[in-house]
Amino acid sequence: MNQLRYGVAYYDEYMPYERLDEDIAMMKAAGINTVRIAESTWSTHEPQNGVFDFTSVDRVLDAMHAAGIGVIVGTPTYAVPTWLVKEHPEVLAVTADGPGKYGARQIMDITSPAYLFHSERIIRKLISRVCKHPAVIGYQTDNETKYYGTAGDNVQLRFVKYMREKFGTLDVINARFGLDYWSNRINAWEDFPSVVGTINGSLGAEFARFQRGLVTEFLAWQVSLVNEYKQPGQFVTQNFDFEWCGHSYGVQPSVDHFAAAEAFDIAGVDIYHPSQHELTGTEISFGGDMTRSLKRSNYLVLETQAQAFPNWTPYPGQLWQQAFSHLASGANMVAYWHWHSIHNSIETYWKGLLSHDFQPNPVYNEAKTVGHDFARLSESLVNLRKENKVAVMVSNEALTALEWFKLPDGKTYNDVVRWLYDALYRMNIECDFIQPSCTELSRYSLIVVPALYAAPDEALERLNEYVRQGGHAVYSFKSGFADDTIKVRTSAQPGIISEACGIRYSLFVTPHEVRLRSEHPEIIVAADDSGAEAWMELITAEDAEVLLHYDHPHWGQYAAVTRNRYGSGTATYIGCMTSRELLSSILKNVLQESGLWGAEQELAFPLIVKTGVNPHNETVRYYFNYSDTPQTFVYPHGVAAELLSGKVIRSGEQLELEAWGVRIVLEAGS
Amino acid sequence: MNQLRYGVAYYDEYMPYERLDEDIAMMKAAGINTVRIAESTWSTHEPQNGVFDFTSVDRVLDAMHAAGIGVIVGTPTYAVPTWLVKEHPEVLAVTADGPGKYGARQIMDITSPAYLFHSERIIRKLISRVCKHPAVIGYQTDNETKYYGTAGDNVQLRFVKYMREKFGTLDVINARFGLDYWSNRINAWEDFPSVVGTINGSLGAEFARFQRGLVTEFLAWQVSLVNEYKQPGQFVTQNFDFEWCGHSYGVQPSVDHFAAAEAFDIAGVDIYHPSQHELTGTEISFGGDMTRSLKRSNYLVLETQAQAFPNWTPYPGQLWQQAFSHLASGANMVAYWHWHSIHNSIETYWKGLLSHDFQPNPVYNEAKTVGHDFARLSESLVNLRKENKVAVMVSNEALTALEWFKLPDGKTYNDVVRWLYDALYRMNIECDFIQPSCTELSRYSLIVVPALYAAPDEALERLNEYVRQGGHAVYSFKSGFADDTIKVRTSAQPGIISEACGIRYSLFVTPHEVRLRSEHPEIIVAADDSGAEAWMELITAEDAEVLLHYDHPHWGQYAAVTRNRYGSGTATYIGCMTSRELLSSILKNVLQESGLWGAEQELAFPLIVKTGVNPHNETVRYYFNYSDTPQTFVYPHGVAAELLSGKVIRSGEQLELEAWGVRIVLEAGS
Amino acid sequence: MNQLRYGVAYYDEYMPYERLDEDIAMMKAAGINTVRIAESTWSTHEPQNGVFDFTSVDRVLDAMHAAGIGVIVGTPTYAVPTWLVKEHPEVLAVTADGPGKYGARQIMDITSPAYLFHSERIIRKLISRVCKHPAVIGYQTDNETKYYGTAGDNVQLRFVKYMREKFGTLDVINARFGLDYWSNRINAWEDFPSVVGTINGSLGAEFARFQRGLVTEFLAWQVSLVNEYKQPGQFVTQNFDFEWCGHSYGVQPSVDHFAAAEAFDIAGVDIYHPSQHELTGTEISFGGDMTRSLKRSNYLVLETQAQAFPNWTPYPGQLWQQAFSHLASGANMVAYWHWHSIHNSIETYWKGLLSHDFQPNPVYNEAKTVGHDFARLSESLVNLRKENKVAVMVSNEALTALEWFKLPDGKTYNDVVRWLYDALYRMNIECDFIQPSCTELSRYSLIVVPALYAAPDEALERLNEYVRQGGHAVYSFKSGFADDTIKVRTSAQPGIISEACGIRYSLFVTPHEVRLRSEHPEIIVAADDSGAEAWMELITAEDAEVLLHYDHPHWGQYAAVTRNRYGSGTATYIGCMTSRELLSSILKNVLQESGLWGAEQELAFPLIVKTGVNPHNETVRYYFNYSDTPQTFVYPHGVAAELLSGKVIRSGEQLELEAWGVRIVLEAGS
Repeated sequence: MNQLRYGVAYYDEYMPYERLDEDIAMMKAAGINTVRIAESTWSTHEPQNGVFDFTSVDRVLDAMHAAGIGVIVGTPTYAVPTWLVKEHPEVLAVTADGPGKYGARQIMDITSPAYLFHSERIIRKLISRVCKHPAVIGYQTDNETKYYGTAGDNVQLRFVKYMREKFGTLDVINARFGLDYWSNRINAWEDFPSVVGTINGSLGAEFARFQRGLVTEFLAWQVSLVNEYKQPGQFVTQNFDFEWCGHSYGVQPSVDHFAAAEAFDIAGVDIYHPSQHELTGTEISFGGDMTRSLKRSNYLVLETQAQAFPNWTPYPGQLWQQAFSHLASGANMVAYWHWHSIHNSIETYWKGLLSHDFQPNPVYNEAKTVGHDFARLSESLVNLRKENKVAVMVSNEALTALEWFKLPDGKTYNDVVRWLYDALYRMNIECDFIQPSCTELSRYSLIVVPALYAAPDEALERLNEYVRQGGHAVYSFKSGFADDTIKVRTSAQPGIISEACGIRYSLFVTPHEVRLRSEHPEIIVAADDSGAEAWMELITAEDAEVLLHYDHPHWGQYAAVTRNRYGSGTATYIGCMTSRELLSSILKNVLQESGLWGAEQELAFPLIVKTGVNPHNETVRYYFNYSDTPQTFVYPHGVAAELLSGKVIRSGEQLELEAWGVRIVLEAGS
Repeated sequence: MNQLRYGVAYYDEYMPYERLDEDIAMMKAAGINTVRIAESTWSTHEPQNGVFDFTSVDRVLDAMHAAGIGVIVGTPTYAVPTWLVKEHPEVLAVTADGPGKYGARQIMDITSPAYLFHSERIIRKLISRVCKHPAVIGYQTDNETKYYGTAGDNVQLRFVKYMREKFGTLDVINARFGLDYWSNRINAWEDFPSVVGTINGSLGAEFARFQRGLVTEFLAWQVSLVNEYKQPGQFVTQNFDFEWCGHSYGVQPSVDHFAAAEAFDIAGVDIYHPSQHELTGTEISFGGDMTRSLKRSNYLVLETQAQAFPNWTPYPGQLWQQAFSHLASGANMVAYWHWHSIHNSIETYWKGLLSHDFQPNPVYNEAKTVGHDFARLSESLVNLRKENKVAVMVSNEALTALEWFKLPDGKTYNDVVRWLYDALYRMNIECDFIQPSCTELSRYSLIVVPALYAAPDEALERLNEYVRQGGHAVYSFKSGFADDTIKVRTSAQPGIISEACGIRYSLFVTPHEVRLRSEHPEIIVAADDSGAEAWMELITAEDAEVLLHYDHPHWGQYAAVTRNRYGSGTATYIGCMTSRELLSSILKNVLQESGLWGAEQELAFPLIVKTGVNPHNETVRYYFNYSDTPQTFVYPHGVAAELLSGKVIRSGEQLELEAWGVRIVLEAGS
Repeated sequence: MNQLRYGVAYYDEYMPYERLDEDIAMMKAAGINTVRIAESTWSTHEPQNGVFDFTSVDRVLDAMHAAGIGVIVGTPTYAVPTWLVKEHPEVLAVTADGPGKYGARQIMDITSPAYLFHSERIIRKLISRVCKHPAVIGYQTDNETKYYGTAGDNVQLRFVKYMREKFGTLDVINARFGLDYWSNRINAWEDFPSVVGTINGSLGAEFARFQRGLVTEFLAWQVSLVNEYKQPGQFVTQNFDFEWCGHSYGVQPSVDHFAAAEAFDIAGVDIYHPSQHELTGTEISFGGDMTRSLKRSNYLVLETQAQAFPNWTPYPGQLWQQAFSHLASGANMVAYWHWHSIHNSIETYWKGLLSHDFQPNPVYNEAKTVGHDFARLSESLVNLRKENKVAVMVSNEALTALEWFKLPDGKTYNDVVRWLYDALYRMNIECDFIQPSCTELSRYSLIVVPALYAAPDEALERLNEYVRQGGHAVYSFKSGFADDTIKVRTSAQPGIISEACGIRYSLFVTPHEVRLRSEHPEIIVAADDSGAEAWMELITAEDAEVLLHYDHPHWGQYAAVTRNRYGSGTATYIGCMTSRELLSSILKNVLQESGLWGAEQELAFPLIVKTGVNPHNETVRYYFNYSDTPQTFVYPHGVAAELLSGKVIRSGEQLELEAWGVRIVLEAGS
């Protein structure tokens, strides 16, 4: 991609009256150079079985081309037409809650032959028709694909075959999954029960892994179809999304993003985040780091919010700040879902750039300045490269496992991930994400491992070796506890990583009025610190240095946080959840020990710095003020140009960022 | 009706032992002159298919007649017999939750032919038998009828035909309901899916309207049957009820009360309300105003509480105060559900006038004084007429629409209705209720319009015209937003009413620490006022005067509350929810501008005044003290008689109302 | 049983690797002399229909025997194998939520012939094989048996027959259950509807009673099978459990423990309780008193916690204290669920004595001292006898009734039971539990009756007679209200017991700022007492003395707590829920009046005393300090030996108990 793209999702099919020319004129005025179409409107394009009508696609492509706007065409398979469900009700997924009901999108059995047959036909019809159209720059397959809980009889049958293929015999399965427990033992393949009601976490988690595999398979199949038509210069992407808690939050439970991303040319994502007084940039950074890590390359923000909900409508300046926040993490495109606000149905209040009245409004007007700046600065900002020295290791398997074996106080895997990630973010530590299967750990000086509850032996052994060779690892509680089938390890905990961590424990308790006591001069426990939260392991340091002990009449002898020198590196183990402040103090110490404490770390949230190198080998530094209060800092780097103002900036110069302000500083050479 | 009626629901069938004579003696002692029977006991009257036994009806009618007590006979169709369900399980409604289970009342498919056939037969058998009995004064059809969620295949089929009848073609439906969205488009009538799973709010709301139509149709059908037997002097009524939140709360979502009331001679209602320290009279007033408005006439309180629940058992004096509160709103009857407390089943703790021991108790004893006073004052108090100058416009469609498109903070349509109604009530402004279809707007000096989210164009145009002609309108936020099929309007908001309101907006946000800043000397924002709540529209005043602005660093330029002179009238628009106190200040200003501020408004809750004119053209004024603290006020009207004490009262005289006290003042001429 | 038993549940089948010899060596080191096996592992012992494999049973029995460890063998029927469910899906209970899903234990229809056939076969195979093995000391039938909500068509059919058998005619049923209400009347046996949807509390409660009868019947059937093989000296027990609220809480709703216990030789129980800072000993005492009462004899704690959950892992000293707490209530065995911590499936975090690493840990190490002391003191502590003068009368029927007719504020029957029981416990009053059917009331000086909402006339008449003959009764609110079919009594309340109580009421309300006013010099209402809670009856004392009145502007004339001298005894009636402190003050007064206030009552929680007589006629007194703070008291009894230290203790000596400390004092003769 050789330019920054600024885009919107556009649905000519949803328009209450003819507006195409007017919309395009307004897009042009706002610097929109890309639209995404077609992924939601199968029933318009195939009104009856085998009857096709691509009128709206054709006219939009022609008009966009005439306006010089590129188009990403989506395969329209994530929402099925009424006629298909009437003819073949089995296209709806049967889930743990029973048969599905027509209405919403994303309710299909993605293994249903009827669904697959009709999907393939519409994909071929649509993509073959548009692939040579000059407006088309790429494709998106399906949208936010997941497995939608599909768990009917056919899926159960496939799961039995998957289990036989993977484990060979029932004896192995009975042993590894502990099926003797509560008489769950399976002694003949025919007896394999539906796992919908299982109480065996190992089996339930394996089924979830199998279901995630269905997503990978389904997407790769779609890509293979589209690739038959794809022209040189065009790309295929997917719109990945994250665990949702009212906004994009953490690791996606239903998709193995790394595996699914393999089939694609470029990763795409949607990122929705709190705004107004709650805008921190954290989710933009988290989602960006994750998506950039999938293919270790730049990515497309296929959807993010313009106005969206009443609590997200941006303050003046925030739309602009958000757009550059995406670029700062490595995005090459920022696209809004969606152009206009929809007049009927469920997403009426997920407002677009335009309100329902299609008139210019403050948010649209701000988008015009974004589009202007994107075009003006594209050459300097596109294709930003990052070489981060810190990685966060995340795992679908650990996430699922902690759904089965929940942390107290409603804490989830993603809460632990975000507890660590957010602390790093606020210290201006940029990171990549990696999976336990990663074999290139030595790229990183520091690997942070949140609650890696279930992992294969070899992944943990790689981490030990990484430390031995000089790497620095930070583990949270619950790491290393179980193997790849979520069987708890029979060794002392934390299992294999005990070796590098130099600790062991066999008891763990729920904290109740348990403070923490620092044993390290540079780790500070505030007088009013909340102490251990949600979970605490009663650690005995064998070789490790104790950084913090618990402060409690009965558990005071045990360590809470330890560090061990192992080989040439260190392994820090955090045995309980702590306040954000105490975690920052611990991480600061780790970063200093690891030689990762630099000028950027002297700044902190709400002053956020993001850095990369552009293809001209210039260093690009973004400075953001995520607050309503102006922020001042001393610029510590070499002479540079501030791109927005065009001013020259010199080392030691004091810079002020206004509320929700942005500076982009370009330093030559690197 | 030429006398006040004081009544109870009476079920001889439920009695644990023979009590009829004793019960009647106790009723007579309490001044009970009316009982309601038979609506709950189909299985007693038809113990087997086609076998009838009206013994209990006959004997109760005879005994009541002998005692001079009138009887309202209910058609016993709202609870079906066991044999009917065993023979024809399809009489149970299939709802979104699946097939029904026998047990509760009000679980039928009111379109089921089996149910209708058997209902018609028992109605004809019962009503033909009793219609000439001299005890019978009238009939109630069914009870608290709703559609009970009926949504099975047969109902879906009827809905498709309804849609075709109403909209003609699928093209119209696809366009008006926005079905292209998420591939919901329907291209053949055969493909019309069950709407049980729909995510299209327009379609879902249309289905709810269709279901409300089933209720109207069902009730009219029952009335037509009863009318075949009804004798001169007898009436047919229905027991309407309200949205329930542990007590009667607001507009009934499942019934179009205005349409359903058409078939009846007189409207009836049940009103249950908080009591003890929570008794305010508001629900009595709300329910009374609504029911009186249905047929613009007096009404029957067919059910209200005697003891009921442990938190409702009245303090001494409250049963008496409650009874007169009903009369003050225009009721001609106050009847308790129920005479005695039931010894088995689910309503054991919904206690009657008598406890389970059938002995006189403090509540029964207080009822005796009510009955005595009703009889004594009937001539002065029956058939009270009201000519209110204020109306509140309510809408089932807006209510349903706001169930689909919810306000933040769990606020509902009825919360907005009650926010406005309750403020008026506390200022002693009496109102009528009207619907958007009302064409006689000019009856009123002021029309208050809560959250009229969805309404046909012509209704909004009538409101504009009403203002132009000199009327005063007060709109809350969310009014005018969508059309009759809940398609959001494509014009600037608030759509059609923008013209009279002289404002526009296209953004709206959730308030977070947003105070309000008054621009009008007589609208006072208290120092500790909570500011905008739940919802705020960012209003630009075009022609309108700004009464309040938002007070916020980013939204401070926008108006919160505006008033526009349009033609000879004014339109006030309130763009956010506010505290009760601030709303009162705004409404006071509106009332003063509209010439509606009078002597009664100098009093305020807990001192409530209700006024009407009796058929002798005398003005009747009720004064209530809804508090535990005595209240004093200066009587401002002409010489009058206080009916309870018999004393003469003169203008300027100071009156004291004891805790939970009542005065009824009769002024000759009017 | 002639020795104390210290045990664990042991599942060789669940072991991740061969450990039997090592486990036994560790058990021996810890003084474990009993294991419980086999009740959970049907699918291992019968891997296919009719194919049996008892390898693990045989080898465990042999190895345990060699080590001198006794074995309790469970019938493995509470968790069904996969093949059985595949062959006969009807073994899964159909409940109110529909058909069951395979996965969990305890999901069967315990009336299913397929289930019963296969259960009988595996029981006979297993028990006949092991019965003569010298390791086997007894049997447990099934485990924590309940009816699992079974309510399918076959169960409904049996219920109809049960109703006909019990009540004779539908006329009787219609009358006693009040089925005329809401047209629920049944006029032909064929019309009897499934009661799954019933809203008639009387019918619903009768169905629950019928379901509890299924449990009694099922367990007696299992016992009859086992008894065919049982050898002299062996026993049959059942593992009863309690209503669960995250731990053992109160009366078990789904089992009539007294009826079900009849078939067994000895009662067994599981007791799980809060620990760490929440350990009070209350649940250990409650569960022990209940289980001892079932057969008026010593009992087995078949399951209690070792480490269990993170919030239960004991503080140092607590495991030891807990073990002796069980003995102090009359247990002859304390066994942990379970030996090791399970590596897969749902109970991974219900940790055993060993952690997942099988290594000695602080809890296991403490168990060693327990085992040592059990062996050393067995002769003095086994077969403790109690002759309590206080009984608490509990009732499954009252519990079920109050599920149908709920108390406000979410209070349940067991909340009332625990409110009273816990107050007695904290005053060191030991009690038995009895049922309303108990005819030996005169054993007791005081009977405490919590919320006996539904009871047969004769039970209440026995209570009146008990008082007349000199007994003392304490009733809580809601007692006596309804008859045995939960029909509310038609007399003044509290019905039959009004005679002994000398009171009546017909109104009751929810308290709102209602304080209590003492009329008795020795009953103290603290200045900050919270007053009446959840429920209050407006009592008029007829013959009774008023101990407390309500303090309220409207309810102040009514009594809250009364006492009546009736014949030679007294009946105290507590008409509202109160604070723990005020209840203690009331109960102290009752105890003093009843001559039950002694030296032990001068101590109070956290200092708990438990007393009994051993078979040598020596008085054994256990003193416990359930707190983190040392406690001191003056020993008031005769010269005795403190068994743990071996020291002699004399009257008047000051004793100190360390945090979570125990003393066992043996006084010769008694």
